[in-house]
Amino acid sequence: MKTPKEIVEGMMAQDAFSHLLGMKLLLIDKGLCTLQCEVTKEMANGFGIAHGGITYSLADSALAFAANAHGTHCFSVDTNIAHLKKVKLGDVLTAICTESHRGKRTGVYVVEIQNQDAKRVAYFRGTVFIGSEAW
Amino acid sequence: MKTPKEIVEGMMAQDAFSHLLGMKLLLIDKGLCTLQCEVTKEMANGFGIAHGGITYSLADSALAFAANAHGTHCFSVDTNIAHLKKVKLGDVLTAICTESHRGKRTGVYVVEIQNQDAKRVAYFRGTVFIGSEAW
Amino acid sequence: MKTPKEIVEGMMAQDAFSHLLGMKLLLIDKGLCTLQCEVTKEMANGFGIAHGGITYSLADSALAFAANAHGTHCFSVDTNIAHLKKVKLGDVLTAICTESHRGKRTGVYVVEIQNQDAKRVAYFRGTVFIGSEAW
Amino acid sequence: MKTPKEIVEGMMAQDAFSHLLGMKLLLIDKGLCTLQCEVTKEMANGFGIAHGGITYSLADSALAFAANAHGTHCFSVDTNIAHLKKVKLGDVLTAICTESHRGKRTGVYVVEIQNQDAKRVAYFRGTVFIGSEAW
Repeated sequence: MKTPKEIVEGMMAQDAFSHLLGMKLLLIDKGLCTLQCEVTKEMANGFGIAHGGITYSLADSALAFAANAHGTHCFSVDTNIAHLKKVKLGDVLTAICTESHRGKRTGVYVVEIQNQDAKRVAYFRGTVFIGSEAW
Repeated sequence: MKTPKEIVEGMMAQDAFSHLLGMKLLLIDKGLCTLQCEVTKEMANGFGIAHGGITYSLADSALAFAANAHGTHCFSVDTNIAHLKKVKLGDVLTAICTESHRGKRTGVYVVEIQNQDAKRVAYFRGTVFIGSEAW
Repeated sequence: MKTPKEIVEGMMAQDAFSHLLGMKLLLIDKGLCTLQCEVTKEMANGFGIAHGGITYSLADSALAFAANAHGTHCFSVDTNIAHLKKVKLGDVLTAICTESHRGKRTGVYVVEIQNQDAKRVAYFRGTVFIGSEAW
Repeated sequence: MKTPKEIVEGMMAQDAFSHLLGMKLLLIDKGLCTLQCEVTKEMANGFGIAHGGITYSLADSALAFAANAHGTHCFSVDTNIAHLKKVKLGDVLTAICTESHRGKRTGVYVVEIQNQDAKRVAYFRGTVFIGSEAW
């Protein structure tokens, strides 16, 4: 059976979008993941600050890695995010994903996203469907 | 006072991330927006299909354009998305945003995202805070 | 195999809370349900208007009936509601649930809640897990 | 200026629905609230377990009390809840609300709901609009 690290390195090898956003894996274990990325000028929205899709994508990747690290394929089905504080170009975002619940077929994950000043900028939660296919 | 088209063209001029994802504006009016993008191989996730952040980002841009087209700055504060169907590389996604409610300080927007076969792939809702600054 | 009406009448027979809130079934079919209730003074919150739990409960019951009417046990796993307009004591609320998606193991339902003036007061969405046990 | 306890006791005096569900206030402060209720047979849904509206209502009341304890009127605008574990009749639910963010016009609150065995049964998040009227 693959380790969490092996599973997630395999996922990251084909995860072109996480690479495009410059995501770096800081920590991985079953149900746990910490990911980081720097906000570049390619990530700006119509207000000249970070697009809401950046924090969402970082959190969604952290959720996917944490949930799949258990060893079977998991797919997020319903997710939500509260944007708390403006994210500026040049900010470094860290997404910390923890497992709130893991049942037989569904799991719930919470992700807090902080900036380089340890200020919380967004709060994400996602429910995943736990499939039966092994990594 | 600027028209919806002028406001959103101004926003799009600095919205680097919507450009990076190749979003095209098909329709814009107060509270209404239709956006389209094609899923390229740079948008893959760890399963080799579209990253959840792609549909989210497309929907979030559509929400931002529809809400700001009224003439004052609006910021999304709480959003959620249900992923209904896998999105494959090469799919063309169309996000249709409509206004569900617009009060004095908050508004609610719904976005349906369809693929090229008119199959719904995701369902998004967002609440915005309506600021006082004019475009 | 039971009809949608038989399934939901069986559910309502033990659904004490929907009875406590005076919910009336106006329409039922696979993936469709319309429920109504009147807001009484027992349903007030700390502002003297309807408690947020009233619109949520009405919508959640409508979702449960619409999803279970297909014939197998379904359980809501993740739900969200935007409160758009104050609901006053004496208002009559109608919740209209439609099916946005139904896959093998998960389904997505949208519920619009209107008052007696056909004004939308809340917008609800829920994801259900589709079990294998038949009604 | 009123204390958090005075504000929330004033709210509870007219909050008929929280009384109907037997909610007890265990702790209140600015941005913090712990509420408890026992699941009675009047709270059953169509499966003979607690209706989803019970955990939602308990969490929504906890959010309202925590947010309003700051001294000005706050209204929840967008809320979501993940149901993690079945709640049975006779269970005693405790909702613990904490403040995740408080800005000028919006605040975000998280509520964890546990049963008598300290098992998490639901996870709730809500965004409030912060009004200007004082209690």
